[in-house]
Amino acid sequence: MKILTINGPNLNLLGMREPDVYGNSTLESINNEISAYAVMNNVSVDFFQSNHEGDIIDKLHSAVDKYDGIVLNAGAFTHYSYAIHDAIRAIKIPVVEVHLSNVFAREDFRSKSVIAPACVGSVSGFGKKSYILALIALTNNI
Amino acid sequence: MKILTINGPNLNLLGMREPDVYGNSTLESINNEISAYAVMNNVSVDFFQSNHEGDIIDKLHSAVDKYDGIVLNAGAFTHYSYAIHDAIRAIKIPVVEVHLSNVFAREDFRSKSVIAPACVGSVSGFGKKSYILALIALTNNI
Amino acid sequence: MKILTINGPNLNLLGMREPDVYGNSTLESINNEISAYAVMNNVSVDFFQSNHEGDIIDKLHSAVDKYDGIVLNAGAFTHYSYAIHDAIRAIKIPVVEVHLSNVFAREDFRSKSVIAPACVGSVSGFGKKSYILALIALTNNI
Amino acid sequence: MKILTINGPNLNLLGMREPDVYGNSTLESINNEISAYAVMNNVSVDFFQSNHEGDIIDKLHSAVDKYDGIVLNAGAFTHYSYAIHDAIRAIKIPVVEVHLSNVFAREDFRSKSVIAPACVGSVSGFGKKSYILALIALTNNI
Amino acid sequence: MKILTINGPNLNLLGMREPDVYGNSTLESINNEISAYAVMNNVSVDFFQSNHEGDIIDKLHSAVDKYDGIVLNAGAFTHYSYAIHDAIRAIKIPVVEVHLSNVFAREDFRSKSVIAPACVGSVSGFGKKSYILALIALTNNI
Amino acid sequence: MKILTINGPNLNLLGMREPDVYGNSTLESINNEISAYAVMNNVSVDFFQSNHEGDIIDKLHSAVDKYDGIVLNAGAFTHYSYAIHDAIRAIKIPVVEVHLSNVFAREDFRSKSVIAPACVGSVSGFGKKSYILALIALTNNI
Amino acid sequence: MKILTINGPNLNLLGMREPDVYGNSTLESINNEISAYAVMNNVSVDFFQSNHEGDIIDKLHSAVDKYDGIVLNAGAFTHYSYAIHDAIRAIKIPVVEVHLSNVFAREDFRSKSVIAPACVGSVSGFGKKSYILALIALTNNI
Amino acid sequence: MKILTINGPNLNLLGMREPDVYGNSTLESINNEISAYAVMNNVSVDFFQSNHEGDIIDKLHSAVDKYDGIVLNAGAFTHYSYAIHDAIRAIKIPVVEVHLSNVFAREDFRSKSVIAPACVGSVSGFGKKSYILALIALTNNI
Amino acid sequence: MKILTINGPNLNLLGMREPDVYGNSTLESINNEISAYAVMNNVSVDFFQSNHEGDIIDKLHSAVDKYDGIVLNAGAFTHYSYAIHDAIRAIKIPVVEVHLSNVFAREDFRSKSVIAPACVGSVSGFGKKSYILALIALTNNI
Amino acid sequence: MKILTINGPNLNLLGMREPDVYGNSTLESINNEISAYAVMNNVSVDFFQSNHEGDIIDKLHSAVDKYDGIVLNAGAFTHYSYAIHDAIRAIKIPVVEVHLSNVFAREDFRSKSVIAPACVGSVSGFGKKSYILALIALTNNI
Amino acid sequence: MKILTINGPNLNLLGMREPDVYGNSTLESINNEISAYAVMNNVSVDFFQSNHEGDIIDKLHSAVDKYDGIVLNAGAFTHYSYAIHDAIRAIKIPVVEVHLSNVFAREDFRSKSVIAPACVGSVSGFGKKSYILALIALTNNI
Amino acid sequence: MKILTINGPNLNLLGMREPDVYGNSTLESINNEISAYAVMNNVSVDFFQSNHEGDIIDKLHSAVDKYDGIVLNAGAFTHYSYAIHDAIRAIKIPVVEVHLSNVFAREDFRSKSVIAPACVGSVSGFGKKSYILALIALTNNI
Repeated sequence: MKILTINGPNLNLLGMREPDVYGNSTLESINNEISAYAVMNNVSVDFFQSNHEGDIIDKLHSAVDKYDGIVLNAGAFTHYSYAIHDAIRAIKIPVVEVHLSNVFAREDFRSKSVIAPACVGSVSGFGKKSYILALIALTNNI
Repeated sequence: MKILTINGPNLNLLGMREPDVYGNSTLESINNEISAYAVMNNVSVDFFQSNHEGDIIDKLHSAVDKYDGIVLNAGAFTHYSYAIHDAIRAIKIPVVEVHLSNVFAREDFRSKSVIAPACVGSVSGFGKKSYILALIALTNNI
Repeated sequence: MKILTINGPNLNLLGMREPDVYGNSTLESINNEISAYAVMNNVSVDFFQSNHEGDIIDKLHSAVDKYDGIVLNAGAFTHYSYAIHDAIRAIKIPVVEVHLSNVFAREDFRSKSVIAPACVGSVSGFGKKSYILALIALTNNI
Repeated sequence: MKILTINGPNLNLLGMREPDVYGNSTLESINNEISAYAVMNNVSVDFFQSNHEGDIIDKLHSAVDKYDGIVLNAGAFTHYSYAIHDAIRAIKIPVVEVHLSNVFAREDFRSKSVIAPACVGSVSGFGKKSYILALIALTNNI
Repeated sequence: MKILTINGPNLNLLGMREPDVYGNSTLESINNEISAYAVMNNVSVDFFQSNHEGDIIDKLHSAVDKYDGIVLNAGAFTHYSYAIHDAIRAIKIPVVEVHLSNVFAREDFRSKSVIAPACVGSVSGFGKKSYILALIALTNNI
Repeated sequence: MKILTINGPNLNLLGMREPDVYGNSTLESINNEISAYAVMNNVSVDFFQSNHEGDIIDKLHSAVDKYDGIVLNAGAFTHYSYAIHDAIRAIKIPVVEVHLSNVFAREDFRSKSVIAPACVGSVSGFGKKSYILALIALTNNI
Repeated sequence: MKILTINGPNLNLLGMREPDVYGNSTLESINNEISAYAVMNNVSVDFFQSNHEGDIIDKLHSAVDKYDGIVLNAGAFTHYSYAIHDAIRAIKIPVVEVHLSNVFAREDFRSKSVIAPACVGSVSGFGKKSYILALIALTNNI
Repeated sequence: MKILTINGPNLNLLGMREPDVYGNSTLESINNEISAYAVMNNVSVDFFQSNHEGDIIDKLHSAVDKYDGIVLNAGAFTHYSYAIHDAIRAIKIPVVEVHLSNVFAREDFRSKSVIAPACVGSVSGFGKKSYILALIALTNNI
Repeated sequence: MKILTINGPNLNLLGMREPDVYGNSTLESINNEISAYAVMNNVSVDFFQSNHEGDIIDKLHSAVDKYDGIVLNAGAFTHYSYAIHDAIRAIKIPVVEVHLSNVFAREDFRSKSVIAPACVGSVSGFGKKSYILALIALTNNI
Repeated sequence: MKILTINGPNLNLLGMREPDVYGNSTLESINNEISAYAVMNNVSVDFFQSNHEGDIIDKLHSAVDKYDGIVLNAGAFTHYSYAIHDAIRAIKIPVVEVHLSNVFAREDFRSKSVIAPACVGSVSGFGKKSYILALIALTNNI
Repeated sequence: MKILTINGPNLNLLGMREPDVYGNSTLESINNEISAYAVMNNVSVDFFQSNHEGDIIDKLHSAVDKYDGIVLNAGAFTHYSYAIHDAIRAIKIPVVEVHLSNVFAREDFRSKSVIAPACVGSVSGFGKKSYILALIALTNNI
Repeated sequence: MKILTINGPNLNLLGMREPDVYGNSTLESINNEISAYAVMNNVSVDFFQSNHEGDIIDKLHSAVDKYDGIVLNAGAFTHYSYAIHDAIRAIKIPVVEVHLSNVFAREDFRSKSVIAPACVGSVSGFGKKSYILALIALTNNI
């Protein structure tokens, strides 16, 4: 089984960016933890990060016939990128929305996700564990 | 480690209620699956269901000093029960909000959760697996 | 044919409560009139009143396989109880929403019914006759 | 006792128009059923249909001193014709608002009635039976 | 003169619940202070607390002919319980709305009270003193 | 100088319609007073009333090259007839909006006029005097 | 193939009405151009204009079994006539919404079309060419 | 008969201030025209202008028992001064709201008057004639 | 202990102004009652009333180091004076908001207080007793 | 005459993406049909597609002095890209907005176009024919 | 060149008022710094502060023919004083809006300026430097 | 001291784009003026322009440890790019928002900045001088 993890804008700065909100782990260390978990569960995971909405859409398109599921932390694009919404809907791969923080307990604008209606489900608020929970959800390892 | 699972209004009808939205499993069978998973992971899980907002609040209060975490599917109370919101905030036990369906892909009123800001995180859209993901999130079994 | 009549919060005070809005009849006398009408039309009618949202939900659930139709005056729960909305949707019995007063000619909050979309129809504004009209609608006695 | 039934825009197309929403009966057959019911109950009923807001207002005005009650399905005018609202208020005849479908379970715009505050009550969702229920409400035949 | 004090959801946790917002006194100690004050002023005070909206409505109803005034801290029900609003309006006893904290200086949702229009007045922001001020207001001890 | 007075829906019922709001004068007597005033001031006034939006638009169109000004009480059309708004804008004759009652002190919907932006000015709240004030405004008789 | 062109309120004034917005052509000259185009493409076109909402609804109804498509410029009715919306939905003939001006670049109220959801498509902003483009769209002459 | 004319903020700059909107007349010349008209009609008129909301309120209060009517152009206070609204309501003198320009054809914020509900009527859009029309309305000189 | 009582716009008219809403007592008699109460409780009270927002702000500023608490009925300024809000926040003296009437049971605009978030608490609905309750709240005389 | 056709995000997936909404044709086949039409009408057409908002803006800029008109299907960018709106306004080439589907009959967010006010006109709902209609509109081939 | 600096409500308390938001400098020391800067740049600066909206309007009026530019920190009046907005528009002197704090990062109500549309520009967030930047902007000293 | 100036979408077209709004200077000439000013003040300034949101985010990230401040004209991204908002918050360099035009005096959508809450301050309305004022603000050259 093959899973793609996509991280959106500013997530490359994890560890350095507002650590009280997002924690101290870098994206690399989070990815390493995901990989370690995946290896133990016979799942193959690839990683992609971009601050470019267009690149994320391209990546979603290119996932067709390559991946069985996608873990997507769209960062702030979550709140306005109807183009990513449409991309998720256009491909037929199940996409799980994840967030590190509990987006519902922060600024008003973060409580609205325009991509959620196109996803199969969402996980938010568990820090780096959000990604692994999404992986479990997609790979049925329960 | 002790976890309490609380299900709100109408979830006692699972299996019979709109199976295209909520699936065919009864609440009992879901609870059995959760228990099975919990046993294998050395977690103790108790279950509570009520259609009464007040009973859910009472149960949340009574959980203090008894449970290490709570998995809460508040059903339709999710969308207006500020009293449950306050109850979650009043006790110091981490509460994870779960939903069987992807609430963001349904009626407008379901996309607003008044309890989310008081929870540590939320999981929605994975059917009965939502509960187990929440359990994993709380018990750190990753 | 068996019909259940459910009255929500504060309707137990009928006759005493704001008689210029709700009329002078007590709930008991209204129920007696409904019964009289029902008897003449070979319909069996049971009555239930509660000020507890949870009790109304429980009653709706318990109606499955017992009643052919439900006449529901949800009182103020009409305006915010998505849990009752979900309960109506979960059971497969036709439910008719009734109101004694013309709810559209009063305070703003009364013009929005969150349960109406789950009901088969609604009757409002005819005082105690609203119940009998709903009964006729359900029992096809026209 | 004399009752006037007024049907608004597009109701002349009943039977042909979106039968899954409005049923298969033509307006003529519905009127015949109403007449049959009325005859049996010693009520005289006249019928009027128009796609013209102005004609409906004129008809409402002309009803003064001729009719004891009016059954009004204002069709889409329900949602914006404050002129019909004012006409109902201007004449002193009780008017009952009816709808074939459950307007609260359809598009958003149909859940707001600008004429309801001027009517004595409303009946909606019972197909052609809505008219007869309104007739009963007005003629006190219960 | 007889006064009833009603406390709504989560107020049983006072002292333990968010002490920076609600103070360190338990509900029992607050009630004791109210009693002490009442005794000195020849007022009889009874106390009731519930996390159940329905119980609060039942209690309000049962107060008729028993109490001369009611001090009501409806907790989070303040913000959505139109059923309590209707109950206050249905009984003829003066009800004073109280809040421990200044509800207008907190989350947005707390600045709207749906029960206030049915009360004679409101007192908020003075911690446990809010109750005694309400008592004074009702008993005219000024 | 030639002036046209147009009265919209339900104004034909003046005198009979809600006299506490609109006064006891009939439209005919009001028109007679306007005529009397006009004669004394060497102004020619014609009168038109219709409950049909389309007729009012036709009348506005036909006024081109015939009248020097128009006094328009559009009744309830005031609040939604963008078609009348466009008609006023299309002809080049100055139109004065009038209302018998103070529309700003009544229901919410009456405080919004969609035709006002197309008129040269408006006069409201002075009963039948509103028409004569508009006439003075148009004929410059001050 | 037979097409009906319907023009709504104030479009009879074209050429005279706000020429900077709507151009200098009269409706007659526009219709002549449409006819000329239609003749060359073996399409039969009829024309109808009315300032009366009811007449437009009647015309839409009468088009059944007579026309293969309808080009509709509903003028200001576009923005509030849910009755025309319902009429379009009731007949099964494809209707194309047209506007002379770019309605999205003008007053706020013009950017909302209540009839668009019932049409097959819309063309706006190309002056008199909007009609011919709609004709092409309906007749497949591309 | 004694009338008071009150002009609010920035009206002292008339003639100099945005003459395309407000005309070229100074406030003094307008007042002179009003006086001339008043003299001819046996009305006594006093004038007051202030840019201070408090002074306008004081002046309204001081008018009690001195004036039979007030012509009030509250300038921009029209749109937010609930204090002036309350002052008008507190005194029992009829107040007519006037505006030089057609406030409904300008910025959005000018189309809402918070003082209109407390006035007997309003006149707007006729330049300096608005004042004289208000005077006529108050003095019944028609 | 020294307390300042500030009354805002139109409160100087108490007794004369809408007595059904505000009661028959004049401001002077209310102040006398407050003084009498204060004397008995060893509190010194000063009084200030103004219809000028600026004067109220100046007075609030001048209270620094002079008063231990302020009782403020800001009248209609309550609903829009962010400047008074800022003034309360700028000084460090506790301010209690009072209202004679139950502002939540009147016009919509009165249910929003822009100064409440800056006050320590609020008391409304008890007529002249509201002031004394505020005094008690500030002086701890319970 | 030279025309540029720009397709925005996800339109590269046409044929595969939600065929019930967008049809079965691929973007390439649509472009071929447009080219065929263009050749027959002596118009030169170039094609550009990108999922990157920035690339579309760059392309719009580079069109200056190269193209006489632009056909733009901005996909989901239609609903939030004020940057594309500004780009259209900045270049002086006429741009026609096109959509394959009737955007007004789908999700709420699709009924608002932020780019429409900067375009000369729009065509939507005719599937691949929308592009050719836009081409005709720009090239005046009628 | 002559510049006037106007400070609105509560700015006289600078240094004492919420120093974490507004800094520790008094208004006098800020004015001294502005003067020092102005002297060095051959600009004459006068200072005015008032907590009275009317005084600020009067001062703006009196600036005509006396000053070449105005630096205005309207304090909380920024958010509701349409009267100051009109005053700025009425005089022809360029006015620059300044704020000490970043008003967009504070309470919601502070992010809306009703005076900004009448100013030539605005500077906010730089503490006392905001004034000097505005001075530079007006005096072209760059 | 090192400053980075970032210009967002369409600012590369300055001089050519709507010169009545944005002036006649090209971006290059503006940059030259900024450089000239910077050289004289011993500040080093680099320039970056992009129409790509992702490039702007990348550039903001790359500025860490390289620049002491950033002058950002985000163009239309100002109004919806929460991703840029997050980027500003993620890096610790002070960012000043600038706009050439007074964004508050134009279309509604331009009066809301989603990036402002993350910036230290903002300067708008002074044409090319806005940049230099921001530079001064950042470099403390006053």
